[in-house]
Amino acid sequence: MYDILIVGAGPGGLTAGIYGSRARLKTAVIEKGRPGGQAATTMEMENYPGFFEHTSGPDVMDQFLAHAKRFGTEVIKGQVVDLELEGEVKKVTTRSGETYEAKTVVLSPGAQPRTLGVKGEGQLRGKGVSYCATCDADFFEDLDVVVVGNGDAAIEEAMYLTKFAESVTVIVIHDDGVLDCNKMSTEKAMSNPKIKWIWNSVLEEIMGEELCEGVKVKNIKSDEVTELDVNGVFVFIGSVPNTDFLQGKVEMDKNGYIITNDRMETNIPGVYAVGDARVKYLRQVVTAAADGAIAAVAVEKYLEGHVEGRVTPELLSKLNK
Amino acid sequence: MYDILIVGAGPGGLTAGIYGSRARLKTAVIEKGRPGGQAATTMEMENYPGFFEHTSGPDVMDQFLAHAKRFGTEVIKGQVVDLELEGEVKKVTTRSGETYEAKTVVLSPGAQPRTLGVKGEGQLRGKGVSYCATCDADFFEDLDVVVVGNGDAAIEEAMYLTKFAESVTVIVIHDDGVLDCNKMSTEKAMSNPKIKWIWNSVLEEIMGEELCEGVKVKNIKSDEVTELDVNGVFVFIGSVPNTDFLQGKVEMDKNGYIITNDRMETNIPGVYAVGDARVKYLRQVVTAAADGAIAAVAVEKYLEGHVEGRVTPELLSKLNK
Repeated sequence: MYDILIVGAGPGGLTAGIYGSRARLKTAVIEKGRPGGQAATTMEMENYPGFFEHTSGPDVMDQFLAHAKRFGTEVIKGQVVDLELEGEVKKVTTRSGETYEAKTVVLSPGAQPRTLGVKGEGQLRGKGVSYCATCDADFFEDLDVVVVGNGDAAIEEAMYLTKFAESVTVIVIHDDGVLDCNKMSTEKAMSNPKIKWIWNSVLEEIMGEELCEGVKVKNIKSDEVTELDVNGVFVFIGSVPNTDFLQGKVEMDKNGYIITNDRMETNIPGVYAVGDARVKYLRQVVTAAADGAIAAVAVEKYLEGHVEGRVTPELLSKLNK
Repeated sequence: MYDILIVGAGPGGLTAGIYGSRARLKTAVIEKGRPGGQAATTMEMENYPGFFEHTSGPDVMDQFLAHAKRFGTEVIKGQVVDLELEGEVKKVTTRSGETYEAKTVVLSPGAQPRTLGVKGEGQLRGKGVSYCATCDADFFEDLDVVVVGNGDAAIEEAMYLTKFAESVTVIVIHDDGVLDCNKMSTEKAMSNPKIKWIWNSVLEEIMGEELCEGVKVKNIKSDEVTELDVNGVFVFIGSVPNTDFLQGKVEMDKNGYIITNDRMETNIPGVYAVGDARVKYLRQVVTAAADGAIAAVAVEKYLEGHVEGRVTPELLSKLNK
């Protein structure tokens, strides 16, 4: 019987492990793949505070993992396929048929960018292909990039990228001038001299061996394919939380993100959620880590029986005025 | 004219600096003392994720500072005495009479130790009375000290003090064996032969003229007062936000903590608050850092004019159900 069973070993889950095991709680984290979550797929990571010299995502995540293990967090390899979250004893079952029992569960399944599914995208991820301007924009100083997408995030990130890149070309599937973006950002982007537009088009292929060297863009009206020499591709067509396996288990918003309060409590007592898979404003390593610390402390209070009552929306609303 | 002017260089302020300057915003942080905030006064820091081997608070904070500077954050030495926060251009004035202008302000003033308010405490501060083991422990080499308090900080600092002092006596208001401290530290402290315990008691007076010469300790059950010959008193009974200079400038709770929403927005447009001085559930380096990252991203959106309307309690309440 674990005190805390954490599902997913990204920065949020591992920090819940650090704080949980340091508080002498019997803590385990179940992870189906490589620990580190999305962060471990980022080749250069410059914005986790305190780490900045020659740091890669895997490096930082290895430190998180070592930190959690050092305090006693157990790492279990397995893919969670079923959970019983109601009641005092939670049960988590993996694909191999193992069932683990725990007093509390911290859900940290993460999210992933929606991908295009085009040739070259997978092998050039982190080598020119990015899904996060905040994370990667400054690696493209004075280089040429394309942006795929035309919603709020895509257009706002395209503008952000103009601070760094020499040129930013936005590939839009719609007719000339039509964007799925708010008016203000649309107007600003349209008048930004560093942004070029390719309309009625989709990205068909990302070229390059070790690094992105160019893209093939197809006009969907004429079927004409054009090659562009670019060094980077930013894809902003949404992200999806890895919460399919949690359907019906905890409350989520319409996009499948888990709803929590500011103590990371879900609607189920003793069940918490942290990191990118929860409804939140900013998805970064440091915010996931903060979630994990908060959840572990909330768990400790819960296990000590110090829970004074769950944080209701009314309370939160008062707190946040 | 700065894009972001950050008041206070603790982990929250420095992270706002890291994110702000990395986003190419003209960013400065004003700090009156040593950068790093309270964290820089903690001798051992084991729980900032990713840092765990032989790490001190000053070490971690030096990394934060270097990180922020590396991206271009300017550090201004000064004590803020006045602020004009309303309107599009904010003005911040320091004691030396300099006035800085900025489009946004991130308040990161931190918090500081609470004092006991007993006789002798004020005049013997720095002469035997301390609120910071890191700063002062080595003045008490082979001497006898008392610790007042029994939370995480009190017990952890008591253990730290045993490396220096001949004896460390902890004065606890609760019954025998009851501490408001995490389990791991409680167990460690209880088995530390250099720590003695006085239960059901409060410190009533600190004696001495030029230096602390002893204390009076009162048992709250028997009202009996005992004198102890000690050379030092370490007080760890919580903290108060450094927000006096912000009275009437931004909305605060009754304890003087700044009220924000989950984007770190205060009630004044373009003014944000991060770290220990805001109303929040858990005050740790990692949660302050997350606040700083969030504030900088919120600032960026604000400066781009993308604010669709402030986050109202109603919205927050919906978001958090």
